[in-house]
Order: sequence, then C-alpha cells, then structure tokens
Amino acid sequence: MIFEAEWVLPITSPPLAQGAVRVVDGRIDDVGPATELRERHPDETVTNFHHAILLPGFVNAHTHLEYSVFRGFLDNLAFPEWMLAFIGARRRLNTDDYTASAMLGAMECVGSGITTVGDTMSHGQATLEATKTFGLRACAFAEVFGVDDANIPSVLRNLDQRMERFRSIAGPLTRLGVSPHAPYTVSGALYRALMAYSMGAGVKMATHVAESKAEATFVRNGAGVLAHDFRELVGWDEVPWMPTGTSPVKYLEQWGALNSNLLAVHCVQVSPADIEVLKRNDVTVAHCPKSNAKLACGIAPVADLLAAGLRVGIGSDSLASNNLLDMFGEMRVAILLHRASQQDTERLQADQVLRMATLGGAQVLGLDDLVGSLDKGKRADLIAVDMEYSHFAPIDDPVSALVYGANQEDVFFSMIDGNIVYSRKKFADVDVGEITERAMAARARLR
Amino acid sequence: MIFEAEWVLPITSPPLAQGAVRVVDGRIDDVGPATELRERHPDETVTNFHHAILLPGFVNAHTHLEYSVFRGFLDNLAFPEWMLAFIGARRRLNTDDYTASAMLGAMECVGSGITTVGDTMSHGQATLEATKTFGLRACAFAEVFGVDDANIPSVLRNLDQRMERFRSIAGPLTRLGVSPHAPYTVSGALYRALMAYSMGAGVKMATHVAESKAEATFVRNGAGVLAHDFRELVGWDEVPWMPTGTSPVKYLEQWGALNSNLLAVHCVQVSPADIEVLKRNDVTVAHCPKSNAKLACGIAPVADLLAAGLRVGIGSDSLASNNLLDMFGEMRVAILLHRASQQDTERLQADQVLRMATLGGAQVLGLDDLVGSLDKGKRADLIAVDMEYSHFAPIDDPVSALVYGANQEDVFFSMIDGNIVYSRKKFADVDVGEITERAMAARARLR
Repeated sequence: MIFEAEWVLPITSPPLAQGAVRVVDGRIDDVGPATELRERHPDETVTNFHHAILLPGFVNAHTHLEYSVFRGFLDNLAFPEWMLAFIGARRRLNTDDYTASAMLGAMECVGSGITTVGDTMSHGQATLEATKTFGLRACAFAEVFGVDDANIPSVLRNLDQRMERFRSIAGPLTRLGVSPHAPYTVSGALYRALMAYSMGAGVKMATHVAESKAEATFVRNGAGVLAHDFRELVGWDEVPWMPTGTSPVKYLEQWGALNSNLLAVHCVQVSPADIEVLKRNDVTVAHCPKSNAKLACGIAPVADLLAAGLRVGIGSDSLASNNLLDMFGEMRVAILLHRASQQDTERLQADQVLRMATLGGAQVLGLDDLVGSLDKGKRADLIAVDMEYSHFAPIDDPVSALVYGANQEDVFFSMIDGNIVYSRKKFADVDVGEITERAMAARARLR
Repeated sequence: MIFEAEWVLPITSPPLAQGAVRVVDGRIDDVGPATELRERHPDETVTNFHHAILLPGFVNAHTHLEYSVFRGFLDNLAFPEWMLAFIGARRRLNTDDYTASAMLGAMECVGSGITTVGDTMSHGQATLEATKTFGLRACAFAEVFGVDDANIPSVLRNLDQRMERFRSIAGPLTRLGVSPHAPYTVSGALYRALMAYSMGAGVKMATHVAESKAEATFVRNGAGVLAHDFRELVGWDEVPWMPTGTSPVKYLEQWGALNSNLLAVHCVQVSPADIEVLKRNDVTVAHCPKSNAKLACGIAPVADLLAAGLRVGIGSDSLASNNLLDMFGEMRVAILLHRASQQDTERLQADQVLRMATLGGAQVLGLDDLVGSLDKGKRADLIAVDMEYSHFAPIDDPVSALVYGANQEDVFFSMIDGNIVYSRKKFADVDVGEITERAMAARARLR
C-alpha cells in the first residue's frame, strides 16, 4: 500500500513535497516523491492524504500510562508536595482502576500520533494490557524501589517473577525493561545490582534522575523534604541514609549505574560537569519539558545536552504531572522554555525537537533499528496530520508548522507496525465511551 | 434564547455545574443553574450544549491582525534580528495583501474563541474591514512612529486624518485608540503629545514597552542594535538620540505617558522599581508570554504584576512572532513559564490566567463594562468548548481543564454581541477557502 501526502517528513532526510511511503507486510518498503513511487509500483493501492503531513509516529520517551486518571488532580502542587499527595492518592485505586487508567492513556497516545511509549510501570499488567489492546509499541519498564540493602536479594527475586509474568502478558510490540525509581528511593547498591540485572537480561534500564531541587538536596546533603516527610510517609524513616556530597548524576556514576544502557529521565538539575559525566558514560536522556515546568522543577539544559552529543528523546511524563499526552505541546514548550530562559534562538530549533520527538525517542529506548524515521526496512509506524485547520495557513516549512503550530487534534491517522489503529479520527475496535466511563469511575475513587 | 452546558464559567463568580445563560437582544439577561433559568423563563428557546464548557469569549489584549500572513515566516530569529527582517519583509505587501492577512487572523480568532481583540494597526483599513466582516469586537489602535520632534505637528495632523477615516470604516463593535509604537521609535515629546491627544479624544492608548533587552539598552545607554542597524535601516541615522540613563518604563513616566489610560504591552524588562512606577500610575498591562518566549525576549514577571495589584490581560501578539492566535496556549504557557522560571506554583494559578484572558483583557482595553464575564447586563460574547475530546477525561475542575488541557480546536461555538459567528465549527457567511487562498497569495510575495 502507498500513502501519499502534500508533505512527507522522513526525519533522516529533508522534507519531501508531494511525497509517498510504501508499506509492505508492516514494513516501510520505499519512500520518495509520489510520482516516482507510483511509477516503481504501478499495481500498488494508493491512499492519498492530500493536504496533510505524513511523518513517523511520535515516540513518547517517558510516561506512566497507569496514572492517566490523575489528569488534573494535583494541578496546583510543586514537586515535593505533589509527590507526597500522589503517593497517598495512588493507594485508593485498585487493579481494575489502573487498567481503566492505562487504557485511557493508550487511547490518547494513539489519537494524538504517539505510536511508541517508553512507559514506567508500577503495577504493570494494566499498562501491558492497554498497549496490547491499542496496538501501541512500547518499551515497558518494571519499576523497582528499595533503600534497605539487606533486601536486595528479595527485590531481585521479586523482579524476576514480575518480569516472567510481564513476558506472558505483553503483546508482540512490547519490550520489557527495568527501572530503579530514583536516587531517593533506590540505594546505590541496588542501582548497581539492577544495572547488572538489566545488562544480563539484555533489557534497557530507565531511571528518574536529577528531576527536582529536593532530590539534589537529599542526595548531596541527606536533607530536605525527601529526607523527612517523604521517608516517614513511605515507612523508611528507620532506614539509615548518608549525605553523598555530590550530585544525583555523579552519585549514580559512583555506583556503576551510568552507561549506554541507561535512559536518564528528566536531568533538570545537572551542572556542566554532570553533563560531561553523562556524555562520557554515553547515557541517553528523556527530556520532559512540560512536566518539569508544571511541577516547578525547572528547565533541563536540553540545548547543552544536545551540544554535548548526547542522544535525547522527549517525554510527556504521566497525566499526574502533565495534562496532555501531546508531543506537539512538548516540542513547542521545549523550544519556548529554552528561548525564554536562555534568550537564544540558535541552539534549539524546530528540526531538532521534531527529531527528538521521533528518532531521538527511538534511540533512547533502543528501538531506532525499528522506528523513529521513515527509512526503508523500518517497521511501518506512521501518522498523518491534517493541514486543513486554519492554523496551517500560510505554510512554507512543514517542520516549523508542526512544532510551532499543530495540536494533538490535528492527527487523523495512526499506523503502528502496519496496522491502522486510528483513521479519520476513529479508533479501530475500541469502545471509546466505555473506556472513558471506566476511567471516570476510577477517578471518582480519588475524590 | 437560553444556552445550557455542563459547566458555565461566569469568571466573576465560581463555576456553575449544569448552568445556563439567557441572551436577550444581544445582552446577557440572566445567568444561573439551568433548572432555575428554565423556570424563570418557561417560554424561552433552549439550546443545550451538553458535555461542554460555556464561558465568556476570550479577549486577546494585544495582536496585529494585519500580520497574519507572516505565520511561520521568521521562526528562527531573536527579537533584534526578527525586527530588522520583519521591517524589510513588510514592504513587499500591498493593501490587498494586508486585507487578506487581517481576514485570516480574524477568522482564526473567531474559530478559536477570541471574541475581542486589542489590535495595533499599522495600515488600519485591513484590520477594520476584517473585524467588521467577522463581527469581531475590537479596540483598534492606530500606530504612530516619530523620533524627530520637528515633525510632531504633522504627525498629529496625519493621525487626525487617519482617525477620521478609520471612524468611517469601523464596524459598530470597534472602538479606536492610538498607539505610539515603542520607546525606540517614538520620542518622549511625541509620547507626551499622543497621551494628550488620546485623553482629549477620549480613546485608549497602547504602546509596546520593555519588550527586549535591546530596547532597554537603547533607552538607557543609547547603544546597541536598535541605535545602529535599526536606525540606519529605517533612515533615522541622522536624527540625534541621547541615552536616558533609565529604564523604558521610567522614561515613559518622565514624559507623562503613564496613566490609567495607557495599555503597556509586554513589560518583560521591568524591575521591581519599574513595577512600582506602573502601579503608582495605574497603568494596565498586556502580557504576551508566547511571543516574548519565541523572540527570546524573556519572561515578564506576571505574578509580580498581579501581586502589585495591576490589571493585566493576555495577548498573543501577531502571527509574525507567534504561530497561533490561541488563548489556551497563551494561558498554559504563561503558567508553565512562570513555574519553570520561578520554581513556584502558588503565585500564578489557573483561575488567575483564565481571568486575565477574559475579564483582565476587557479591563485593559477599557471594555469591561461590556464584556469579559458572564454578568447580567453585559453584551453577549460567549463561547463553548467541547469536552468530548479525550483530553477532558477525567475532569473535576473545568477551569483547570481549560487552562492545562484545551486546544483552540475544542471551541465549536462563538457568539459576539448576540450574533452567532461560529457554530458547530462553521463560520457564518464567510468563504473560508477564498480567505485562505488570498492569504497564501500574499505570502507568496514574501518568499
């Protein structure tokens, strides 16, 4: 099947006016000018999207689909208070609630052009069922906590069992990974053990790191709200903790947790020296501009990360700390935050953020051999954006138009692995009303 | 006619669940719970928007509809370079182009829920025709430039003639105003003369002020790109200029240009002392968060302005320095920029930015006796936002949901002065295709 559109954005090469993509057996078979593809494949069925932009599906490098019913629930809190309130609220939901929640999130992804998620799972089953139901591609990380080193063997046994169970549930488009939660909830020794585990199992590892000043204060000084209120709330107040005297990033390096297998999520509180550490260990990064802003954590130095040569993807984070799973908004806010704070327009531009939102995300999840660009041989994860909306007129540069002007509602077609999961704004085989109703019922339990 | 919706947001009072608004002769006649309005007015026709939010139309406190065809044209430039490039490009358009451009902008306003604009007009006729065609309410400011005080009499005569002509073109929903452009293009003496003129004519005055560091450097030191490249480009390099030693805001105060009749647009480069000056003169402010960010000007201290008790509206600025006329995006980015830079969530919240985007805008344009809230006696400027989109689920607080989650496409109904100008996403009596085509033709002249 050939898909044609006024613009095709392969990402790894310049935009094609009147371009086309041929999909064969779920794979991208050919990309080029529409006239050439028609000539080369004269018997192929053609779908012409006309006044539209065809591009690779977005890769949302960091989210938690399970938390989707928390949308708008803690809109007014900064990170430390948000974290404490969130932990309390989470306990009120049951397994069915989490499934409804993950379904809602997966639906929003597919409808807004996200075809791959890097998802950190607390419960797991909910996310794996939701991604399978919607045909969403995922790198799904099993989350791990642990500050008492005496428990490391049991933590690892438990992880093994969860991974086994997750493998039996996960759909064919899901890869598993492991995720030590963060430097304030996982000991250095457990980080080291989990890195060994992930390398041995051949799976990716992700961790939240350097997200907030509260975290940096706790790691460096053993002090602040995460040392006191937080540890009391989660029952860790009798587990000893020492200040490390260093930054979260350098602390993880000391414990052998930094290498090219690690996806470092957030990296807001990083100094130039921390960036050197990340670079020398070839760590990959998920930049979550809107979540970091909303929780008042600050602005990650994303232009510096890119200038250092690091691979960076963009994540929405969950709907507990953002209100949309919308990569257009993430790209736009990433640029606006950079420009406003750095008073510089040169070091972060539209083509770079679009690349981060597609190929960059695929790279940081270890999926760039499969997706992230429209290149022959990659799996067919494609989306189409409708340019009929007034805000696309006039248009010269489709990349700039997407980054500065598009909204999630402009997506009208999503294909994942060759399957059409969303077309003319309708989901394939999904009861939208039922999913929404179940999610609302779960939310009612939080009030 | 009664309009009902799941939520009604009067702005001046708390959200009403299952609320209603009665419109009689283009005026808001009653607001309250739907059941009560039906009882009080049993014979009235009822339109029920069901799963929707009904609120006052947005007031875009600062834009330039004439520049709409510049959307996406100078996406990569910071303020000083943008200004120089923009001046050159503007000369390539003719009067018909500007009309097409203003039509495109007015169309986007009406379709995105903006029912009133504070518009600064360089040409004038184009904007006045566009707002009239779309039934858009406006405070339309005639822009004035002048750095040679010998010319002040002729500048004022010319302004008088323009105002006379504008009065004959303007529709019934348009008020005129005057706008000295900025401290780097208007002399202190001309500012003083224009303030006298505006007070005498009983019209509002608006001016760009404290937008960029380049402007602050020029005003204080008589130096920088605005003293050299800019003045050469516009042919002012032989007009003498002295450093003032002070900030743009204090400079305007020295020349008697600050009072409650002045709308100060931008106010990014303002110190605490400048804010005191603005407050003591009861100046009103238009905050343009996305434009200021995109041009790398910085972040206006909007929480400080509000805390000082200033009246503040929100403006998109033009499509030459923004890519959307979308008040949802402005509200959201205003909050995110504040939170990211101030690392504070308390001093700027969803209800405050929604108030700025409606009643605040009406106040700064001197139109709050007419619009900006759903109060009995005000003119009927209403919009409805569709909550069917997945990103409104779950929803507890409609104000938070609008600010953090809505997009311009979610608006499906706009009424201005009792006239339905947009309904079920269709414009009344407007050929959308023709307007877009004419705008594209104008843009072609810029390439």
